[in-house]
Order: sequence, then C-alpha cells, then structure tokens
Amino acid sequence: MKEVTVYELYKDEKLLEELKDSEIVLEGWVRTNRDNGSLGFIELNDGSFFKNLQLVYDNNTVNFEEVSHFSNGDAIQVRGILVLTPEAKQPFELHLIKGVILGKCQDDYPLQKKRHGFEFLRDIAHLRMRTNTFNALFRVRSTLSYAIHKFFFERDFVYVHTPIITTNDAEGAGQTFKVITDDKNPNAFFGTPSVLTVSGQLHVEPFALAFRNVYTFGPTFRAEKSNTTRHAAEFWMIEPEMAFTDLNGNMSVIEDFIKYIIKFVLEKNKEEMNFFNTFIDKDLLNRLNHVLNSKFEVMPYTKAIEYLLKAKESGHKFENNDIKWGMDLQSEHERYLTEVIVKGPMFLIDFPKEIKAFYMKLNKDNKTVAGCDLLVPGVGELVGGSQREEDYEKLKAKMEEVGNDKELYWYLDTRKYGGCVHSGFGLGFDRFLMYITGISNIRDTQPYPRTFGSIKY
Amino acid sequence: MKEVTVYELYKDEKLLEELKDSEIVLEGWVRTNRDNGSLGFIELNDGSFFKNLQLVYDNNTVNFEEVSHFSNGDAIQVRGILVLTPEAKQPFELHLIKGVILGKCQDDYPLQKKRHGFEFLRDIAHLRMRTNTFNALFRVRSTLSYAIHKFFFERDFVYVHTPIITTNDAEGAGQTFKVITDDKNPNAFFGTPSVLTVSGQLHVEPFALAFRNVYTFGPTFRAEKSNTTRHAAEFWMIEPEMAFTDLNGNMSVIEDFIKYIIKFVLEKNKEEMNFFNTFIDKDLLNRLNHVLNSKFEVMPYTKAIEYLLKAKESGHKFENNDIKWGMDLQSEHERYLTEVIVKGPMFLIDFPKEIKAFYMKLNKDNKTVAGCDLLVPGVGELVGGSQREEDYEKLKAKMEEVGNDKELYWYLDTRKYGGCVHSGFGLGFDRFLMYITGISNIRDTQPYPRTFGSIKY
Repeated sequence: MKEVTVYELYKDEKLLEELKDSEIVLEGWVRTNRDNGSLGFIELNDGSFFKNLQLVYDNNTVNFEEVSHFSNGDAIQVRGILVLTPEAKQPFELHLIKGVILGKCQDDYPLQKKRHGFEFLRDIAHLRMRTNTFNALFRVRSTLSYAIHKFFFERDFVYVHTPIITTNDAEGAGQTFKVITDDKNPNAFFGTPSVLTVSGQLHVEPFALAFRNVYTFGPTFRAEKSNTTRHAAEFWMIEPEMAFTDLNGNMSVIEDFIKYIIKFVLEKNKEEMNFFNTFIDKDLLNRLNHVLNSKFEVMPYTKAIEYLLKAKESGHKFENNDIKWGMDLQSEHERYLTEVIVKGPMFLIDFPKEIKAFYMKLNKDNKTVAGCDLLVPGVGELVGGSQREEDYEKLKAKMEEVGNDKELYWYLDTRKYGGCVHSGFGLGFDRFLMYITGISNIRDTQPYPRTFGSIKY
Repeated sequence: MKEVTVYELYKDEKLLEELKDSEIVLEGWVRTNRDNGSLGFIELNDGSFFKNLQLVYDNNTVNFEEVSHFSNGDAIQVRGILVLTPEAKQPFELHLIKGVILGKCQDDYPLQKKRHGFEFLRDIAHLRMRTNTFNALFRVRSTLSYAIHKFFFERDFVYVHTPIITTNDAEGAGQTFKVITDDKNPNAFFGTPSVLTVSGQLHVEPFALAFRNVYTFGPTFRAEKSNTTRHAAEFWMIEPEMAFTDLNGNMSVIEDFIKYIIKFVLEKNKEEMNFFNTFIDKDLLNRLNHVLNSKFEVMPYTKAIEYLLKAKESGHKFENNDIKWGMDLQSEHERYLTEVIVKGPMFLIDFPKEIKAFYMKLNKDNKTVAGCDLLVPGVGELVGGSQREEDYEKLKAKMEEVGNDKELYWYLDTRKYGGCVHSGFGLGFDRFLMYITGISNIRDTQPYPRTFGSIKY
C-alpha cells in the first residue's frame, strides 16, 4: 500500500495515473467533517499542499461511526481508494476504507469553523498557520526566500552572513537594541558596547571588493517605538553589493531581481496567489503582472519636484504640501509620482546629498548623490539603492563630518586598498511579502512578530 | 569589445571558443606583478572565481612602463587579446594591450605577498577574504548555504524564519544574551524580558504541525564564556522538523541531507576543495568521499557503553575513564566509537533520559529517549536529532518537572490540538563548514566572528 502526500497527487500526473483506483494511505489533519448518517465528507489537509483532499465515507467504510466523530484539528491516518473525479470541483477524492485517530484535537481548540479576525489570530501565532490565509502566506514566504537565493546563486553572487551582533549602528539610521549579559556591566561579555544590526551593508561591502558580486540576507532590527502596520522590531533584509557596477547597472539588477522573484512565486504558488487575489486584494495579480510587463522608468529627483509643484499648482493637495527642492519625499509624494505620473514602477534617482546617507556617491553637480529608490504603485518605496562613494578622500571628508571615520576605519579601508566603482541596494523582505500577498499588516507576514510593546513566544 | 569575467572564461566553453584571439575587457584586482623590463606577468583576480587570470605584457602593450608599476591590491581595468594556451599550466591568458588603474592600493596595505598567519588575518577580517584560503572558504560557505536551501526546497519543506529576539531560552541549553533598549528599565521596549534565541526548534515545531515538513536556518546565540576553537557567540543553525516522521525516518533524512550538501559543494567548488585538500588538510577529500560512500550505521547508547567498557578493560585510557551507563559521552568517547569501532559515520541512539532535553520521546523501556546523534570520524558529533514526545500527558508531566510548562504553554498546545509523531534535528552550520573545509578554528569560518571577549566591526 502506497503512502503519498496530497502535493504528490496534485503535482505528479504520472503517480496519479498509476495510483488511481488503488488503495493508498495518507496522514494529515481534519479541516472539516460533515455527514448525513450514511454518507460523509472530510476535508483533509496533510500539510504538503495548500489544497485539501476530500475523503468520502459511507457504508464501505469499516468504521463509519468512529470516522463521523472525527473533528476539526484531529491528526488522522486514512486508508482508501483513490478515485478520479474529472467532473467534480476537485480532480480526485479518497473513498475511505478506514480512518484512525493519531492525535485528538481537544475541545477548547481556538480555531473553530467560523472566520477569525487577523487580530485574534495574531494572539495564537502558534496555531494560525493552520488557517487558509496564513497557510498560504507562510508558503509564499518560504518560496520567496528561495527565489531570492536562487536568483543570486544563478548569477554567481556570494552569500555572506553579516553579523547580527555588532559594534556599530551603520548609518545611524535607526535606534538600536543593546546586547548585554550582565545588567551591572553591559560590556562584560565582549568588552565593548554591542548592539543588534540595523543593516548588513557596511559589513558586506568589503566582500564585494573581493568577490565582485555578493549579498546578505538575514534579520535586522530597529528599536523604533512606532506602532504602525509597516514597522516591526525584527525583520529580514536582502542587501546585494556589486563591484564594477554603477547606478545604471544597479538599477538593471534591481529590475531583473524584482521581476524574477515575483515570477517565481506566481509560478510556484499559483493556488496561494489565487487565494490572495480572491480573498485579500482583488487587484493583486493585475498589479504584479503589470510590474512584470513594465519597463521600469527613471526620474531624477529634480524632475520629480517639478511634477509635484505642477500638481500642487493645479490644485492637488498633499498632506505635506510644502513642496520644494531639498525636501525628503513622503509616501504620498512617491505614490503620486508612481501612480499618477508614471503609472508604473519607477526609479527615483539623484537625491539632494543632505537627505541621504554618507556613503552615497556624490554626483558631478556636487549637490546630488547617486541614489536610486524603486517606487511602485500601491506602496511607494520598495527598494533603496545607490552607487557608493568610491573616492577615498571624498568619503573620508564626509565621514569626518558625520563623525564615524574612526569607528568605521575598516569601511574606509575598502576605498584605500584598491577601491572601485560599486553599488548596492536593500529590500525589506517582510514589506515585500506584504506587497506580493496584499496582506496589509507586517505582523501578519512574520511567523512570530516582534513590535513595540509586544513580544510573545 | 566584450566585457567578461574570469568565471565565464573558465566555465563557458562556448564563450571561450567564441572569444579566443579577440579583444576583451576585464576588471579586477592585481594579486601579483613581476617583470624583467621587457616581459611581465600579472595575476589578476576579478572576484568572480577562485582562480586568477594571467596577464602577459610586453612591447605590444601600449603602456608597459605604467603597467609594470601596478602593485598588489590595485583595482585595474585591462584590455587585451585572449590567447588559448593548451600546453601551459593555465588554459588561457590575456595578452595585454592596455591596463588602467581604477583604484590604487596604498602602500600600507596589510596583505603583503608573504604568507600571513590566521591569527593576524583574523584581525583584518575586512581584508582577509582577498587571500586564497579565505576566498575559498567564503565561497564554500555560500555554496553550502545554497545547497541546504536547495535540498529542502526540492523536498517541499517550508522555510520558517523563527524569531531572533525571544522570551524563552528553549531547553535552557546555554546562557543567553539579553536584549534591552534602556539600561535602567530592561523591559522598556517589549514590556517583558527578552533574549537572543539559542535554538529555533521550539518555534518551528508548531509549523511542522501545519506544513508537515519545515526547517529553520538562521543565526543563534550562546553567551558561554568559552574560548575554544569550536565556540562562537553567534553562529548559524539548520533545524528541520518533520511531522508523521519517527526516529528512523529522521535518520534517513539526516543521511540524505549530509550526503547531498557534501556532494553539492564538491561539485560546485572543485577548485576550492582541492585547495583545502592541498594546503589545509591532506585527508579532507578522502574523508568526505568516505562519508558519501558509507551507509550510516546505527548503535544504541547501551551498546556503545559496552564497547567503551571493553576498550577500557583492554587497556584503552580515556581522559574521562569512568565509563558507566548514564554518563554523557564526551568527544573522545564519540570519536572512539566512530573512528575505532565503526570506522565511519554512525548514529548513536536511545540515550538515558536524564542526559537529554525534555522534549525527546520516552522509549517503551521508560529509561531511554529516542534521540539520534550523528557521529563522524575526525570530529565526533555533527548532528543532534530526536523524535519528539507527542503524548500530551507525558510531555506535560515532564515540563512540569522541568518547570517550563507555564511559559511554554503554546509548545504544549501542539500536542493538545492534533499532535502526531514528529522528529527533527539540528546542524551547526559553522562547525559543519569547519568539517568540510578542514579549517580548525570556528573564527576562521565566519565573516566577522564574535566570541567571548572579542567583537570587532
């Protein structure tokens, strides 16, 4: 007797052909069970696939009575005949010979048949992956991770595990968590203050200067006390870095990368993505396909300000309506540009140097830096990237100004010892997952979310 | 004029055929440069590959004088004719037309031509990846990571990002780092004490009870004040978990997994692995191939104690020579078993319950638990795994005894709501990297190592 998974039945046509009308065994969990006394149906999910397998039980089932008492959440083993049902909604079903309880689900099971709100489910993060939405979500999360590694592996990028505990806060971008062992002596373990990383970029750049193309993909942390739907204290980031690559080369990789990972998920998780499109965001697949079919446009910051001023003049009201060159664009401005002006994905480039990080390359105009933010309709900024300042003297002067030249001497060294044009970018993994699933709260994209004032598990 | 990488020239035969005798452009770094006034040779490494490209310059080179002054570490761009040299040591070389400096390497460059000790290099972790050993090492590290993801993806495991900041210390296995924002009020951010994870297992198990086969692969932390060559404060772990899988199934996956990732690295990083075999550990490839060709044996702990007693009786002296049933085996005992008795990889199983974690399945003898440690010659323990206790009442009693039943109520829930037989294992990534490269200090396997008393960068 063949033991199989639901995924194999759905995805392996040859196996299905071979097994039809024969006896097979499966193990899994009861999602629903209903019967009329002589005929019953169980939706079995065995964890291998988003879809369920329908079990039919009747007077050919040796323990009808027992099976009819299986309840939502029970772990069971079933033996039956695989029957193809080309006319039905599902392509096959299992005619049950016998079902056995492996692990009973007790009566106070929090997941009842009714629809549960996301907030309620957040409180039972150890069970919510058993619901359709979270089952689909964590499958897509897994596929997306793999797609990212695959993209870079195929292009011979070296994956670097940049450190989690670190002595520096990168660009001073966010507030950091301190790491200690002893309350009375915070430096007891390492001998020096240490914090959780906010970005792997500075640590990965020295690797680009040896391996040409590298990336880091790991957890990062921000101790910001913000309670929004887009902020988490712990989240994953992808940060590639490429030597001998300028801003144009950088944008070209970003475009290829974004399209590749979207395409990969759409192909691998068709069922899950259809589910999101039906139940979470009816415009989702349209939006993603639009990205796949767009050539990403490029717009300098200075041009963007002109567009925003024109919009203001013609009566458009922004929350922040004080549009002027030198301002840091807010999400509403970014969305106006990508949604109203460009109507598609776009790179905003060449920002005033004052509003960007110290490591960005100063353009010839001495006023702007070679940054590139990818903006997309519906969200605004998705990726932030830049060409890095490779000129040792310029970077040194800038770092002295910022005051991190001593601490980050090793970062400066990369420009001192055979530096070259190089570029990179950062993509927030969890926010990207929100984008491609339509899920609107970052807490619902993470296995066990950590946010200001909230840590469970 | 075609721009190419050294990797492409080595790995793409069609491209090589197409480009031979034509003009190409490359960018990279000078590894060595020597000339006799009319003929010179540069070893160029462009980061794309472990191997260098030889540049030959002579009176056909337009700027011989300039090129002859290129020095170790300079970033350069070169234009020349690709010439096949089937009789020479390297299969092709570049006859230089012109070379241009992209970024000069200043004279105080710490990496000089001579051989540097690992300890010296550890202090310049931002540059050491430019040496052959560390260049090879970080390439293998990257490949190994990918091999791991690929193995699980091909088997439809769901990858789960278990949290880094957590409220529990798993099995109480190691000392933890505390995570705070405010020295005066350690609970200021989350409202509760929080620490860095020591293992993702407990967090990943609930996912196995929904997705069947899952794994986590991420950083873990131990605040142990040990200064050995095998202890790091921060390291990466792989922890798969499989529902409906018992100890035998677990061992079968471990064996497939270990063989798969070794094979993948041997194939993808042939040059790097040959380098390690030549310069680091002359027995390396023998040892790895022996693992690939072995069927992993299985030995119960009780049997192992018999072997060790017999060894003692016949005069073998262990450091810890007090051999008796119930003892926790040390590395010397494990190595005796795998090197002298089995002479190959082996699983040690069924340990006294007193020496193992609370979550391991109690065997029918009521004395041992269903654990499985993979031991290999040369190292000892490589993997630790077990079948988990799926019986709610038994696990609850055990957790009450340990005193973590309240804190880990959610872990107990997985047995309460449709629990089933399940198993998993853990592999320390960095230690495994030591094993497959022959590198003997864990500090030399990590991009920026963090150990007791030492954190740089």
